[in-house]
Amino acid sequence: MPSYTAPTKDMHFVIHDMLKASASEIPGYGELEPDFTSAVLEEAGKLTSEVLAPLNVVGDTEGCTLENGVVRVPTGFQDAFDKVREGGWTGLDMPEEYGGQGMPYLLGTAVGEMFSAANQAFTMYQGLTHGAASAILAHGSDQQKDTYLPRMVSCEWTGTMNLTEPHCGTDLGLMRTKAEPQDDGSYKLSGQKIFISSGEHEMADNIIHLVLAKIPGGPEGIKGVSLFIVPKFLVKEDGSLGERNGVSCGNIEEKMGIHGNSTCVMNYDGATGYLLGEEHKGMRAMFTMMNEARIGVGMQGLAQADAAYQNALIYAKDRLQGRDVTGVKNPDGPADPLIVHPDVRRMLMDQKSFVEGARAFVLWGAYLIDKSHRADDEAAEGLISLMTPVIKGFLTDEGYDMTVQAQQVYGGHGYIEEWGMSQFTRDARIAMIYEGANGVQALDLVGRKLAQDGGKHVMAFFEMVKSFCSENKDTDGMEEFTEPLKKASKDLQTAGMYFMQNGAKNPNAALAGSTDFMHLMGHVCLGLMWGRMAKAALEALEAGASDATFYETKLATARYYMTRRLPATAMHLARIESGADPVMALEADQF
Amino acid sequence: MPSYTAPTKDMHFVIHDMLKASASEIPGYGELEPDFTSAVLEEAGKLTSEVLAPLNVVGDTEGCTLENGVVRVPTGFQDAFDKVREGGWTGLDMPEEYGGQGMPYLLGTAVGEMFSAANQAFTMYQGLTHGAASAILAHGSDQQKDTYLPRMVSCEWTGTMNLTEPHCGTDLGLMRTKAEPQDDGSYKLSGQKIFISSGEHEMADNIIHLVLAKIPGGPEGIKGVSLFIVPKFLVKEDGSLGERNGVSCGNIEEKMGIHGNSTCVMNYDGATGYLLGEEHKGMRAMFTMMNEARIGVGMQGLAQADAAYQNALIYAKDRLQGRDVTGVKNPDGPADPLIVHPDVRRMLMDQKSFVEGARAFVLWGAYLIDKSHRADDEAAEGLISLMTPVIKGFLTDEGYDMTVQAQQVYGGHGYIEEWGMSQFTRDARIAMIYEGANGVQALDLVGRKLAQDGGKHVMAFFEMVKSFCSENKDTDGMEEFTEPLKKASKDLQTAGMYFMQNGAKNPNAALAGSTDFMHLMGHVCLGLMWGRMAKAALEALEAGASDATFYETKLATARYYMTRRLPATAMHLARIESGADPVMALEADQF
Repeated sequence: MPSYTAPTKDMHFVIHDMLKASASEIPGYGELEPDFTSAVLEEAGKLTSEVLAPLNVVGDTEGCTLENGVVRVPTGFQDAFDKVREGGWTGLDMPEEYGGQGMPYLLGTAVGEMFSAANQAFTMYQGLTHGAASAILAHGSDQQKDTYLPRMVSCEWTGTMNLTEPHCGTDLGLMRTKAEPQDDGSYKLSGQKIFISSGEHEMADNIIHLVLAKIPGGPEGIKGVSLFIVPKFLVKEDGSLGERNGVSCGNIEEKMGIHGNSTCVMNYDGATGYLLGEEHKGMRAMFTMMNEARIGVGMQGLAQADAAYQNALIYAKDRLQGRDVTGVKNPDGPADPLIVHPDVRRMLMDQKSFVEGARAFVLWGAYLIDKSHRADDEAAEGLISLMTPVIKGFLTDEGYDMTVQAQQVYGGHGYIEEWGMSQFTRDARIAMIYEGANGVQALDLVGRKLAQDGGKHVMAFFEMVKSFCSENKDTDGMEEFTEPLKKASKDLQTAGMYFMQNGAKNPNAALAGSTDFMHLMGHVCLGLMWGRMAKAALEALEAGASDATFYETKLATARYYMTRRLPATAMHLARIESGADPVMALEADQF
Repeated sequence: MPSYTAPTKDMHFVIHDMLKASASEIPGYGELEPDFTSAVLEEAGKLTSEVLAPLNVVGDTEGCTLENGVVRVPTGFQDAFDKVREGGWTGLDMPEEYGGQGMPYLLGTAVGEMFSAANQAFTMYQGLTHGAASAILAHGSDQQKDTYLPRMVSCEWTGTMNLTEPHCGTDLGLMRTKAEPQDDGSYKLSGQKIFISSGEHEMADNIIHLVLAKIPGGPEGIKGVSLFIVPKFLVKEDGSLGERNGVSCGNIEEKMGIHGNSTCVMNYDGATGYLLGEEHKGMRAMFTMMNEARIGVGMQGLAQADAAYQNALIYAKDRLQGRDVTGVKNPDGPADPLIVHPDVRRMLMDQKSFVEGARAFVLWGAYLIDKSHRADDEAAEGLISLMTPVIKGFLTDEGYDMTVQAQQVYGGHGYIEEWGMSQFTRDARIAMIYEGANGVQALDLVGRKLAQDGGKHVMAFFEMVKSFCSENKDTDGMEEFTEPLKKASKDLQTAGMYFMQNGAKNPNAALAGSTDFMHLMGHVCLGLMWGRMAKAALEALEAGASDATFYETKLATARYYMTRRLPATAMHLARIESGADPVMALEADQF
């Protein structure tokens, strides 16, 4: 069975050496002293590797079942959920006012990565709750906040988000679920929602569904969509639970992976709902949840890649097969370990350089969110808005590929369920799809985010990379990192220029290159992260850090990313510059 | 449920327009008249779409079960197997002397693609039999051929190949299965083999296992391995079945995919076996089977990609979601079909250009095999030997990626088993692993095949691409294909040069770039195929072909491959030229 060890040391490095969090002036960051963050990370690491990780295979094997309307989660999930709640983990970065611990999102994100890596399907129960609570926090009335938040922050109650219907996923304007206004100010919701993660289960006393629906007579399409709170059990004025609401699970989907999470068809049969935010402004409210969720999903890509990588590494060191062509490494054994072989190394280095780069990227994203929310920094808000589709799309595409590589290290054993490597791949696959399929992320990036606020944010990003390169190129040992980064960044700018020059005449010239642009930008972001990590490592070595090997390993991994991964930018640029014609040449019936 | 339509028209195009098979002087190719091949392909197409494809999901859902030593295959498999046998499909390209139809391997390969695409797990029962029969044909005594071949050609008996043991996969020198010589000239085999596809079932009266084992006292390692014929039921002198042999299925593996095939742990308990070929020359005999199998597996990569693509295309035309940004295409509907969106197009074009290019590549490979075997052409033999790892490794890596893209077109529905897209991905995954994991293919290519016969074959390939480009660059309409191909081919030659200059000093300088080289070469091969197909299409249009749209579609698809896919060569070259250092920098304990 696969194991999981929380990467606490690496997180510490990113938070303190790279982001220098405790020195930051962002309100609340002063608390992030190295000893404190270490203690939190170690504690979370223990819980995730000892309690959650062993349940990962159990969840995959047993799945969830629906019987007489009751959903059963896999063995051990309830106990583990109780432990997570008891430890206060669910409210780590939620406001103290509602029972949370008020920690920065940065710390919550680091802990979240561990949870996801150890058991993605399990962690989604609390993940969705966090997202739903955030939406209520941002858009709810005081009464709604008081009613729902304390028990959602503690995960006494869990949450869901209900968008998709059988005939509409991305295009939510086609939605049919109706919300009829009632005299008492509430609404009656009717319709069917599908793909509802954590939609029904008995691990929590109540489930708070956030549901998109149309109020009859409202505007057509997406502009007529509103968001509603629909509790599984109605909540009485005194906060106790009342009768069961008209919402039920009609089916549990058989999926490729994340079997431990109950993905439900939810039927709303005149269910009582309460408007969250304003009428017809449902998409705006939902986006509060979705933006957070998208970063969380990007993190899942990284998390599954790390979990898979850790096991591939163990196997590569353990499994004896063949001999090192440059000289026997294990003369007393019948063969050398797999890790001596260059092509196995290549796979491990691809994974390692991705995982550590992506971790820095996600934590930097979390830092930007804190800066935006806690320090009201508009530049940070613009930047994270730009980065959100890249974090989601690039990290889940690449993260998936890395789980496939990790599986490959195992050879035939990677294909056998018993070894657990297939599960990482199957679980990671969903992250490319949900919370907006990656093509939609690319569309969001190229179609909206690049031009947002007059292109200010993308220009700021270009400037940030440029400054990093020019400020550091003359620092001893940095040129080997700044030069490739500068080159990659130039590819990105050239691509952006191509869109500007051609997109106005023909929007397809930009859209046909959207996924390539997202990947190009993802590589530049990871290149920047590796540049910053290399700088931090050089500084630590210069300062005589006791664990020199750790920092030297960082530098070697940075070199790998720069020489082996960054050259992808030129390919993406070439594709982008070939424009729309090759992509759009055929009539639909020519296919 | 997914459907499958055999690509008979496209196969016809490759066989007749591109390869001009019926005009070839290869013995037996005269029979490949267009009307004849069409009739065979149509008939096979009907069988595969009507009989095999509908059982694909059944096989995935039911899987195989072992009860009291008896393996049950999924519902419907036995009937379908009977139909395949009755139709004479199993011996299409086997010698008439043993009941086959003596057709070229080219035709067998085209039909084989359909079988694999319609139902990979099912087709493996006959595929392994074909491989085992080929090994007996090449290395068996007359008596062995007479005993086994007629009933293996008809699939009255099926076959398997037994290489892997729990502790050894790639490194077969570590093998422990023993074969003790007996006084009557037979051997007693004892040991355990794992991952044995089609290892046990009741669809055939007998199963002929080809088993690698060591004769005690023989040379150490791989040089002491011999190959044995071990029938499930011993065969009496009169050809009738005798007693059950000491071989049994110990377990059926739970796998990520190909559930319809019984992947068995096989236990040999003093089983009677007969030496096939010479003592200690087992690997050579096994390679007859493996080379054929590797091309067959490359074809599986293409086949799964095509099956997945066909369904993604249907969905993209059918599913209404969003509007074409350049103008509404379906004004009477609530939304436009997915296929209007450039990023969906990109995915479909990636798939289409891969599938058709890969099909040409595989059929060209089959043509080379025919040329080598039927016309004793040494150049063709050298070329296909060089191409075998590329066909296997590149087409299965890319083919898998294409199934992932096809799944992505479905959005959330792609993740739900009910839609069948997950199965294509899960089934395609094995092809990257079995018959030598793709890293081993890359090693074979770079470590052996490049330098084979003094590098003659790779030089011949370079020359072939060069001549194609120079001969056609001035032909009207060809320059847009020859120019990118020339550029890609130059990248490949530069990479080869890098290996020559650095590999002697440090073998790792070549091995660290082996997978990139395999992909680089794969792209050049597909580029060459697209060049040749473009040429054939231009010729057909020039000749006033009635179906001009078909040929214009070919040209547009060729353009897509040249502009969007070929630019990958520069990235692979850059990685290769970064050498071994970035890959090998870390000590094992630094990971």
